[in-house]
Amino acid sequence: MDPRIREHAEIIANHSTEIESGDNVVIQLPSQAEDLAVALHEICGERGANPLFINYSDRADRAFKRAADDFEEPGHELALYEETDVFVIARGGPNVSEGADVDADTNAAYNRAREEVKRERLEKTWCLTQFPTPAHAQLAGMSTEAYENFVYDAVTLDWDAQREFQANMVEILDDADEVRIVSGEETDVTMAVAGNETLNDYGEANLPGGEVFTAPVKDSVEGEVYFDLPLYRYGRQIEGARLRFEDGQVVSHSAERNEELLGSILDTDEGSRYLGELGIGMNRAIDTFTNNMLFDEKMGDTVHMAVGSAYGETVGEENEQNESAEHVDMIVDMSEDSRIEVDGEVVQRNGTFVFEDGF
Amino acid sequence: MDPRIREHAEIIANHSTEIESGDNVVIQLPSQAEDLAVALHEICGERGANPLFINYSDRADRAFKRAADDFEEPGHELALYEETDVFVIARGGPNVSEGADVDADTNAAYNRAREEVKRERLEKTWCLTQFPTPAHAQLAGMSTEAYENFVYDAVTLDWDAQREFQANMVEILDDADEVRIVSGEETDVTMAVAGNETLNDYGEANLPGGEVFTAPVKDSVEGEVYFDLPLYRYGRQIEGARLRFEDGQVVSHSAERNEELLGSILDTDEGSRYLGELGIGMNRAIDTFTNNMLFDEKMGDTVHMAVGSAYGETVGEENEQNESAEHVDMIVDMSEDSRIEVDGEVVQRNGTFVFEDGF
Repeated sequence: MDPRIREHAEIIANHSTEIESGDNVVIQLPSQAEDLAVALHEICGERGANPLFINYSDRADRAFKRAADDFEEPGHELALYEETDVFVIARGGPNVSEGADVDADTNAAYNRAREEVKRERLEKTWCLTQFPTPAHAQLAGMSTEAYENFVYDAVTLDWDAQREFQANMVEILDDADEVRIVSGEETDVTMAVAGNETLNDYGEANLPGGEVFTAPVKDSVEGEVYFDLPLYRYGRQIEGARLRFEDGQVVSHSAERNEELLGSILDTDEGSRYLGELGIGMNRAIDTFTNNMLFDEKMGDTVHMAVGSAYGETVGEENEQNESAEHVDMIVDMSEDSRIEVDGEVVQRNGTFVFEDGF
Repeated sequence: MDPRIREHAEIIANHSTEIESGDNVVIQLPSQAEDLAVALHEICGERGANPLFINYSDRADRAFKRAADDFEEPGHELALYEETDVFVIARGGPNVSEGADVDADTNAAYNRAREEVKRERLEKTWCLTQFPTPAHAQLAGMSTEAYENFVYDAVTLDWDAQREFQANMVEILDDADEVRIVSGEETDVTMAVAGNETLNDYGEANLPGGEVFTAPVKDSVEGEVYFDLPLYRYGRQIEGARLRFEDGQVVSHSAERNEELLGSILDTDEGSRYLGELGIGMNRAIDTFTNNMLFDEKMGDTVHMAVGSAYGETVGEENEQNESAEHVDMIVDMSEDSRIEVDGEVVQRNGTFVFEDGF
């Protein structure tokens, strides 16, 4: 086994989740990532934790969704997560387009039925990570070997140093009332963040980490955003998405590719038309886009916004937490002709932060 | 996908378990059996049932067991099964010897910690079946294609006709007080079955089915048994096992291969030295031994006995149900120089039953 797989498992178990004796652990990985599952099971054994290995199979999910007329809450799965302490999930299936022929409405109904399961899982100590497979290498336009290097370099960052670097931006946002994001001719959006919390993501719930993120005040978002970078959702790529916000809500949308899918995501429920997250990518070790949100949203010269559910920890007591069965991140490239303003002051210009050399 | 896989899944869902709308279903298969998982997920979708796909990975299990000093009950897994209606499990990993270097004591401790989980699962509607993989073909000494034919022929039997054929033997045993099994020079064992129930296995909990089985009265077993056929347990083969019973208990044992493993199974707990099952194979469609208990024990000219736990449904109210973390089936070849006597009358001679032509 590639020794970096054991190293990856140790970072998950030590840094990201702190698996301890007696912990009930759910490990949800695709078959292709069995090596990582083996390494995690070994660590669970060493520590006296109890692993359960769920198969994350896009083929089985697709078959189930396509055959179903309707979905109900899976009570056994909910009971499982209620008794779970640590939840580790990794992507790395054999075909990222496996869900391409599942109706968008079907996915929305499926997610609605699983909302409680999702909420329960998010209350655990959890970690979402990536196993480097040929399919994801292909998605990135890279050889499998180069992609393996890319993934293992990104997950084995010096997370303490990264936390300190990111703390600069947390400090700025924690004191902020309003954030404005401007990029090119097409993106100019403002949102209140007053009263909400900014979190420092240094490789815990997401591995790799490398962002700071908060929740916009629900009804405060105003303006237009053009998302330069494509996103994959349900096995399909949405490209060139545009959203226009009034009083926090998406009032119009378009996309250059798979616009209908974008519309169906926004129609999932009441909360899927509001932003649940504003994130600022700060991981300089991720130096190329790989068409994979887990990595792309962490890049140093990006911001991302998610329509759908807000993370509870980011929402202050005075503010409303946006709830939705969806949470879809979308990225704006901030490397050129761009700026982030906080309460009228520029804190990032063309990807360089105010606290970095060369600002 | 081989159309026989969908057919296999339909037999599981229709005949073996009757998956219905609203059922919470756990599907525990090795990665190699993903096609069967996909077919089962499709059926769950069609019927409005809720599938959860657990990965049955011998590699992950081995890594966990070898690394652990001790085991505790996995509370999250127990909670899962408490809310489960149907449990489908299939063998079909890439290497049947994967557990060969796990200590026997470790396996025994692991099973003890999981006794409640096992008990909970057995209370569900469950089905154990086989996915034909190259590793199991190799174990059988067959090509993969020939083994696929063997497996699919065995699982797609006319189960109604089989049930009727087997009912003859159920009738005999239901009225019986004592059973004696004699084979060659080395096997001569008697046991009471009075008050216990004989079940007709026609492809429900085991697919393929093809046996009738009951529980011996716990302290009644007397005599010696030589098990002609090898068995695989924890990735190792026990060959030429001999057991001697007094007052129901195994008082001495030996084996020509892996005797120590046999000893450790018997030492698991108090119940693992008593028989939990007497089974009589009656499936004439299984015409060759494949070193796989699920098939071998169903052959028409065999009987099998299991040390360890008795199935609750086979134990009458007046009798004690043997409890154990183990349940290990072992086979006696009854094709030559053999007979089964029930209350002094021969009911099978050299593999032919009293109700068959040629007796």
